[in-house]
Amino acid sequence: MKAFIEYIGRELGLADPKTDYPNICAGTDRYAMYKVGPVLSVSHGMGIPSIAIMLHELIKLLYHARCTDVTVVRIGTSGGIGLKPGTVVITKQSVDACFQPRFEQVILGKPVVRSTELDSDLAEELLQCSKNLGDMETVIANTMCTMDFYEGQARLDGAFCSYTEEDKQNYLKEAYAAGVRNIEMESSVFAAMCKLSHLKAAVVCVTLLDRQKGDQLTSSHDVLQDYQQRPQLLVGHFIKRRLNAKNKGFSSSSSSSHGVDKAKTS
Amino acid sequence: MKAFIEYIGRELGLADPKTDYPNICAGTDRYAMYKVGPVLSVSHGMGIPSIAIMLHELIKLLYHARCTDVTVVRIGTSGGIGLKPGTVVITKQSVDACFQPRFEQVILGKPVVRSTELDSDLAEELLQCSKNLGDMETVIANTMCTMDFYEGQARLDGAFCSYTEEDKQNYLKEAYAAGVRNIEMESSVFAAMCKLSHLKAAVVCVTLLDRQKGDQLTSSHDVLQDYQQRPQLLVGHFIKRRLNAKNKGFSSSSSSSHGVDKAKTS
Repeated sequence: MKAFIEYIGRELGLADPKTDYPNICAGTDRYAMYKVGPVLSVSHGMGIPSIAIMLHELIKLLYHARCTDVTVVRIGTSGGIGLKPGTVVITKQSVDACFQPRFEQVILGKPVVRSTELDSDLAEELLQCSKNLGDMETVIANTMCTMDFYEGQARLDGAFCSYTEEDKQNYLKEAYAAGVRNIEMESSVFAAMCKLSHLKAAVVCVTLLDRQKGDQLTSSHDVLQDYQQRPQLLVGHFIKRRLNAKNKGFSSSSSSSHGVDKAKTS
Repeated sequence: MKAFIEYIGRELGLADPKTDYPNICAGTDRYAMYKVGPVLSVSHGMGIPSIAIMLHELIKLLYHARCTDVTVVRIGTSGGIGLKPGTVVITKQSVDACFQPRFEQVILGKPVVRSTELDSDLAEELLQCSKNLGDMETVIANTMCTMDFYEGQARLDGAFCSYTEEDKQNYLKEAYAAGVRNIEMESSVFAAMCKLSHLKAAVVCVTLLDRQKGDQLTSSHDVLQDYQQRPQLLVGHFIKRRLNAKNKGFSSSSSSSHGVDKAKTS
């Protein structure tokens, strides 16, 4: 999060080399938060429950701070299906492990189903941004959001595995047929909570491997580092373009905040 | 985690004031791990998906390290129901938001239900330990494990709330009637994965507030700090007693490892 805010600070010309960015949430170990200009960068830990806690508190914060015209982007890593590793996926729909675009929230012991629809114009704008960044393959596709990294994503290398390589491949093929091109663990509740709050939202995750070819990372440390920078570069470029447009009078909102939720991992 | 391992190091007489404990998992930001003697202390983040990732990797580690006679204890904080804040709850059964002792794991898109049974002898042994620690109220009771901290635990102070104070109180009353005395976010998958791995497991969480009286912490920082120490003190005493018994020949296992999973929060 701090690296991202330092990068954005430099890109926007707001960086002061003499000052360090403090962690605004230093009093808690739930997550870390950094800010430069109108951009917030917040960590969210791993999985739906962890990001949901952060989002409840972030949404309340944005409300009390009277932020308007807010755009929220989750950036992170993911496993790909049928894509070259390093490809960036902008999520069209976040689907569950049965490939349905829904998030089930249990309230007072009863399931409540919520839509995981994301902003299609925002996804398209991000895709356009990627075209300015040269050699960064980027697609708009469905993202599967699971509750578990090992059994939940049909990995064969967890502590338990009750299925075969063939079962795994069949499941990934079904996911591919449903338009899924990457798998991560936070997008569904992120999409659902942003939609409920009328926040424009996008999910931008790089794929670190093709899950049809394996379960573990085989790229070198340097290559993985390069992949992990890609969502940051893309969203950094997007923020810069949006703010430049605003400064030229293309937007009439009175204040603006671009929140970026950054995954530690996925 | 580090504070716990430093405490255990001192308690077991294994601490070397000249050496710092390194984070064994420093190469990842998924979690932190510290070790002293036969005791591991590992963080697990917030929520079921986060602790499940850690447990898959810990269980594989214990297997490859050929550890035997392993006991795993999750220590952390929780919200209480009908208990004086500061009470320590040793989990009898981890139940879901419908008060059922089960954990549903989705595998290849299909739900698989697993038992969340914990070791009753271990729970009883921990309760006995608490009696040696003077003024630390401790009970054995059911723990409700939820997927969400706000709506999932019937809080009224999240970003969204579609129910009334009366609905909340009725839900907490139902939970109480089902034997639930505290609520947290990791115990069900912890119990399920430990049971599948034949690891003896316990959950020891202090209650920071009585949820029937409110949703937010009202105790002072110092009082909360004191509460948060209690699971550590209890489990520290338990580990010391177990290891002393082993050294006196009460146990015949060839090697031993006491893993302690520590919540950042709950």
